Amino acid sequence: MSDAERFAGLHVPGAPLVLPNAWDHASAAALAAHGFAAVGTTSLGVAAASGKPDGTGATRAETLALAHGITALPCLVTVDVEGGFSDDPARVADLAAELAGYGVVGINLEDGRADGSLVPAGRHARVIAAIRDRVPGLFVNARTDTYWLRAAEQESVAETLRRARVYVEAGADGVFVPGLPDDAAIAAVAESVRAPLNVLYAPGRHSRARLAELGVARISTGSLLFRAALHAVVSVAAELSDAVPDAEPTIPTYQRVQDIMATVDTGRAR
Amino acid sequence: MSDAERFAGLHVPGAPLVLPNAWDHASAAALAAHGFAAVGTTSLGVAAASGKPDGTGATRAETLALAHGITALPCLVTVDVEGGFSDDPARVADLAAELAGYGVVGINLEDGRADGSLVPAGRHARVIAAIRDRVPGLFVNARTDTYWLRAAEQESVAETLRRARVYVEAGADGVFVPGLPDDAAIAAVAESVRAPLNVLYAPGRHSRARLAELGVARISTGSLLFRAALHAVVSVAAELSDAVPDAEPTIPTYQRVQDIMATVDTGRAR
Repeated sequence: MSDAERFAGLHVPGAPLVLPNAWDHASAAALAAHGFAAVGTTSLGVAAASGKPDGTGATRAETLALAHGITALPCLVTVDVEGGFSDDPARVADLAAELAGYGVVGINLEDGRADGSLVPAGRHARVIAAIRDRVPGLFVNARTDTYWLRAAEQESVAETLRRARVYVEAGADGVFVPGLPDDAAIAAVAESVRAPLNVLYAPGRHSRARLAELGVARISTGSLLFRAALHAVVSVAAELSDAVPDAEPTIPTYQRVQDIMATVDTGRAR
Repeated sequence: MSDAERFAGLHVPGAPLVLPNAWDHASAAALAAHGFAAVGTTSLGVAAASGKPDGTGATRAETLALAHGITALPCLVTVDVEGGFSDDPARVADLAAELAGYGVVGINLEDGRADGSLVPAGRHARVIAAIRDRVPGLFVNARTDTYWLRAAEQESVAETLRRARVYVEAGADGVFVPGLPDDAAIAAVAESVRAPLNVLYAPGRHSRARLAELGVARISTGSLLFRAALHAVVSVAAELSDAVPDAEPTIPTYQRVQDIMATVDTGRAR
């Protein structure tokens, strides 16, 4: 059995794969050493670690370098490539082939864009088909941002299922829908999509057991572990210093991390 | 007042600067956003983040790239350059000048080497003098590994003070002695060194208040925040999965992190 087949086999509706997402070699190595069979990447973490904004296609080189390094780890690796860093299906297929050449077994490809829009489903499907054609063994996880992007007017189970169907017909091996609002929506999507459903873990809102009951096949941590790491950094440092405020009690949100990174970009004033 | 003068002014015996150490842009940005006036770097973190071993001079490029990025942050930046990535004083001075050109206000330069030996004090002093000569404004923190390297037979207050004196005479602005074993040793070194004393924070062993009483002028977190981040990553991920063991309750040691990274290097078997 190939690594990619082994990875596909870990997607079991009702007994979901827990996929932790790393952002650098060390976080991936720590997760692999702890026994996680597969490790993903988080584009927020990869971008922030190198001082770049997330979701804007700015981290192609960093993503490739990270993927190249962590395929040396004793775990299966799947890579978040945002929207593919290009709108050209052939160029995205080139990227996928390069990753597969490193030993990467899967990629995540999202239909949301930095301006809050979704690319037309047919265009996203053409990219998926190009990857499927070029790299048949790669597990293509098609992410739809129908619920994820706050601006998305298309937020509905019906639109999610329509997009999922188009992506699966184009060759997607799995469908990732971050931000599904409640158990009913998760169950409805899990039941109707003809591919393993991946959801994003929301601490305090879900348990793995409940997501299993709902038919989920993969649970990703997204940027959670990266944000938990930043929280630990500030918490431990703040304990030691009385010159700064105590750390906030909870892990920062995605938006809070983006805000911290944006402050940075304009901070070269001193 | 220049940034470097402002940084030097933060080193007050009895009212020590707490210097948290970052390893990538995101960790530095989070610390700066939380109000830390100055941020250092940790060579373990920089090395591990890019999948390289620590303390072997392998991360010159990564160290420069990180320094270049984080000088854009609203904080003062001092950089851990291990042993200078070269034994040639002129080359280390070049590195220091390049960092100062980015806006870096200080560097840490250690006399320990990867094989557990210490370079002769006179040779380390020549490197310090070369930096002082080339980049007069840079705060040079001379680290001596008399206590840090387990193999060091020279482990004594007398040898530490001898080296500190040589380094200060060569132009060091501060002296860093990680691993001092107890309060008596810290007080003895703080009292006799004619420059601000920097110690490494050991959680549970020291408090900032006690280190202040002992005359310390700078407290570094070293690799602690990086290791706390890795611990958070594994802890949060392990909570979600029943396929892996629970995370260990405490932050991994420096050696444990090095072991995880070494496992990685030989893991390309699959």
